[in-house]
Amino acid sequence: MKAEITTHLTYAVDSPSTILLSVQPFPTQRQKVIQEHFTLPPDTEREELRAVAGEKRISRLQVVTPGTVTFSYNVLVENHLTVLPAEQLNHVPIAEMPASVLPYLNPSRYCQSDRLYRLAASQFGHLEHAFEQVMAVRDWIHSHVEYSGGYTTPHTSALDTLTERVGVCRDFAHLGVTLCRALTIPARYCTGYAYRLQPADFHACFEVYLGGHWVLFDATKLVPLNGLVKIATGVDAAETAVASTFGQLQFQELAVDFHLLDPDFTPVDGSSPTHGYCLQ
Amino acid sequence: MKAEITTHLTYAVDSPSTILLSVQPFPTQRQKVIQEHFTLPPDTEREELRAVAGEKRISRLQVVTPGTVTFSYNVLVENHLTVLPAEQLNHVPIAEMPASVLPYLNPSRYCQSDRLYRLAASQFGHLEHAFEQVMAVRDWIHSHVEYSGGYTTPHTSALDTLTERVGVCRDFAHLGVTLCRALTIPARYCTGYAYRLQPADFHACFEVYLGGHWVLFDATKLVPLNGLVKIATGVDAAETAVASTFGQLQFQELAVDFHLLDPDFTPVDGSSPTHGYCLQ
Amino acid sequence: MKAEITTHLTYAVDSPSTILLSVQPFPTQRQKVIQEHFTLPPDTEREELRAVAGEKRISRLQVVTPGTVTFSYNVLVENHLTVLPAEQLNHVPIAEMPASVLPYLNPSRYCQSDRLYRLAASQFGHLEHAFEQVMAVRDWIHSHVEYSGGYTTPHTSALDTLTERVGVCRDFAHLGVTLCRALTIPARYCTGYAYRLQPADFHACFEVYLGGHWVLFDATKLVPLNGLVKIATGVDAAETAVASTFGQLQFQELAVDFHLLDPDFTPVDGSSPTHGYCLQ
Amino acid sequence: MKAEITTHLTYAVDSPSTILLSVQPFPTQRQKVIQEHFTLPPDTEREELRAVAGEKRISRLQVVTPGTVTFSYNVLVENHLTVLPAEQLNHVPIAEMPASVLPYLNPSRYCQSDRLYRLAASQFGHLEHAFEQVMAVRDWIHSHVEYSGGYTTPHTSALDTLTERVGVCRDFAHLGVTLCRALTIPARYCTGYAYRLQPADFHACFEVYLGGHWVLFDATKLVPLNGLVKIATGVDAAETAVASTFGQLQFQELAVDFHLLDPDFTPVDGSSPTHGYCLQ
Repeated sequence: MKAEITTHLTYAVDSPSTILLSVQPFPTQRQKVIQEHFTLPPDTEREELRAVAGEKRISRLQVVTPGTVTFSYNVLVENHLTVLPAEQLNHVPIAEMPASVLPYLNPSRYCQSDRLYRLAASQFGHLEHAFEQVMAVRDWIHSHVEYSGGYTTPHTSALDTLTERVGVCRDFAHLGVTLCRALTIPARYCTGYAYRLQPADFHACFEVYLGGHWVLFDATKLVPLNGLVKIATGVDAAETAVASTFGQLQFQELAVDFHLLDPDFTPVDGSSPTHGYCLQ
Repeated sequence: MKAEITTHLTYAVDSPSTILLSVQPFPTQRQKVIQEHFTLPPDTEREELRAVAGEKRISRLQVVTPGTVTFSYNVLVENHLTVLPAEQLNHVPIAEMPASVLPYLNPSRYCQSDRLYRLAASQFGHLEHAFEQVMAVRDWIHSHVEYSGGYTTPHTSALDTLTERVGVCRDFAHLGVTLCRALTIPARYCTGYAYRLQPADFHACFEVYLGGHWVLFDATKLVPLNGLVKIATGVDAAETAVASTFGQLQFQELAVDFHLLDPDFTPVDGSSPTHGYCLQ
Repeated sequence: MKAEITTHLTYAVDSPSTILLSVQPFPTQRQKVIQEHFTLPPDTEREELRAVAGEKRISRLQVVTPGTVTFSYNVLVENHLTVLPAEQLNHVPIAEMPASVLPYLNPSRYCQSDRLYRLAASQFGHLEHAFEQVMAVRDWIHSHVEYSGGYTTPHTSALDTLTERVGVCRDFAHLGVTLCRALTIPARYCTGYAYRLQPADFHACFEVYLGGHWVLFDATKLVPLNGLVKIATGVDAAETAVASTFGQLQFQELAVDFHLLDPDFTPVDGSSPTHGYCLQ
Repeated sequence: MKAEITTHLTYAVDSPSTILLSVQPFPTQRQKVIQEHFTLPPDTEREELRAVAGEKRISRLQVVTPGTVTFSYNVLVENHLTVLPAEQLNHVPIAEMPASVLPYLNPSRYCQSDRLYRLAASQFGHLEHAFEQVMAVRDWIHSHVEYSGGYTTPHTSALDTLTERVGVCRDFAHLGVTLCRALTIPARYCTGYAYRLQPADFHACFEVYLGGHWVLFDATKLVPLNGLVKIATGVDAAETAVASTFGQLQFQELAVDFHLLDPDFTPVDGSSPTHGYCLQ
């Protein structure tokens, strides 16, 4: 899949501020950033950082002149989902797990998996195969949580979503991550751009470590899996914020434009019981 | 400071299990592991892993034979606190912070700093200097939280401790980490051995990034700072567990023996308003 | 059912204290207190109060002399469950509900029904008849929550139990109350003595307002419904504590002896889909 | 103080619904309802209920015809605060407390006082006199919590407000109630109309049982105490909702008009350390 994506983020800045922006697709073997360009306000310096944990590129922006400022980013990106047979996507024993994967078994700010061991075992423990368990987690969330804005806040965690049964993509992804970790399956939160997301916005889904691959799942079922462009992965939304701001400034407006450049695009909806998909 | 430390951890193992153990001091420029030795049950394999994030060494143990098994570890370790003048321990602007430090500003499972910005600012925001703020955080915790076992559980978080005002070293450290992050000062959780801890056990304290150093603080004020031997640092207790177990097994018993080998040991209590201490 | 019940409660009293004790069966049309007797430490005064809300008798005890003191209570009680056909136990419209019943629709300390409307509707909303819904609530709790001591504390609420899926009779009853209220069915918490409870202790269950009756349910399924002797009802455990203490004193020991005096006792297990039971 | 107050509540009603409305001032010895009048949509029946617990009058409205409907209420009310010398407002021992007051020591949905005993004791326990303690609670809330809308929801409880330090009158009152109960002082939530409240709305404050009186406190300090008209008291907002709705309907709009009819009105701000005020 090939796409041109443009993002505009506008802030009202009252004093010199620092912003950490994660809007750039993360390059992997299966996802190439062909061309990208930032358009920044005058006097704004940008430094690119690479996260130590998780996968993300951070633009550290220094805004010195107050006023209403817009950061724009344009990227040409191409990626190809790897299709993996479900029977290969088995549970990796702790004994064989790479050290870099182990942290994704831990509970985190919005994913308190330590409190859900019994629930996860009783709900999904009877399923034998790990891929089947994760598909059941995804389907359970989709059918038990109402997708609706206006009910959740930046403080909302997976436990809240499990209780109140309403939320947006962030909440669906947190709950997916949490239930998988509670099943002793490493899972991480993933942000990205998504083709056909209405209204256009950033999206969130989750990745699960199965058979040595980080397999992609989206419990919202809102968009084709092959229309996703990965920006960042991390333990949860706390580690993968699109923007973290430091200083006197207020968020004003966001615009995302996703322009598909792939004439033969055939949507992959991720519901196949026989195959998993991966963007590594 | 030089010490010989021995730890015995006993489990009742019902089926082949995997244990991730973090009991080895972490070697830094100021902390040398002179000699160390594991005594493991027969048939138990040990593999040493190095964490990707945080600082810790993990021993991955495969226990194949059920029964009551004891893992013993003996280490000869020497370390020297760096003493740093308080005036150098200033707040590092986000603009200058290394990428590896930024994650320690994020909220985590037991340190929900995103909910405490107003509280931290109103309680500690009037203090001008970052080192002074952290000392005030440490003193506030010490005088407002009762040190007492039996009230908290592995699920207890900093918000619980702030509410209920009772806990053990783990809870004191989580609250310290959380309040610092809410002041936009990077902070991390730290486990270790501690001289004179009664009863002998593992200890927890916290490190704060000031003036380019990870400065050590202990809100319990139970032990001399220079009697600490660092084992692991991480975002919170979720990332620095002494032992994580996978399989059918139950914890039975822990014994820690801390034998000081330093005839001229003079305790440093960490209360100096003019100096900070660091074990990097 | 007829029984003689004896309770001994022992405290270590350090200074003059007040204790509010609710250990006396509450007399209703279907439950008669034939004879009862308190044995109190010397110098202890007892005053009997009747609660304004809920149904309970409170003994207000003034203990003036420090020391280890035991309060004993012996009662001869007889009660008869009313058996009601399920088809009469329908949902009472808000329009027809007595004012005294309305408070049992509100969320309370341990029963945060305001956060469970979606969950309750999606899990039990498809069932047409209110009695059927409550039976499904009872069965769902019984099959999804593990009955096990040592995991919950006096702070544990229905949301915790829904999350962690483990608890004791108090937790089972709180969850039952909460799910019913979330279905707009009035529900209240009920404490009592229970025949065949092992180990002997106070018990908790819940009552639901159906068809104009307070119908009794026990999600633990541990004891026969007709072996229950009601002590108190209220919004939740906060309103129906067996003992509330004020002063310097510590709980030491509890003994409950339930002696059945009914040679022809036939246990009623409360699982009938065609009948409800009531002790009003 | 004498006032004419008019309230209009508008709903979009989709199907026959029941509404429980508590907008009528509660008559006490010191508060007289001189004249009152409801203007209801055609076909709407109103029945007046009196709460069993708490003090409130409930109008049960049956709306049968869908559409946009407005309920209007107009009242002429006169009340006079009782002024009580602080030295009479002492702590009432549990031993002497009326049974009707005891429930206001219990934790409730939004007032989890059972978790704040240590905090309350350490913050306010050094003050000797109960009235002084409650004044300190009121002042502490006022100076530590930011009065600001948009941060809290109907689920927000006193623990959230203590953590996040921001809220509206409802949150201020819940925290006041909770801290008093944690000091073993009975406290209840109180809704009402308030002169000079900007924007005009319902108001919430709290009452504390001192020296045999329910003494009025307002931690927001937004309005004169003698400009309050009491509508309802109860354990917390769960028991004193202005409107509880059952059926398919959405709240649309609220208008409150408070017209002072007292030419010589002198505001009482409730900050006197020597006097308390009471509307019983």
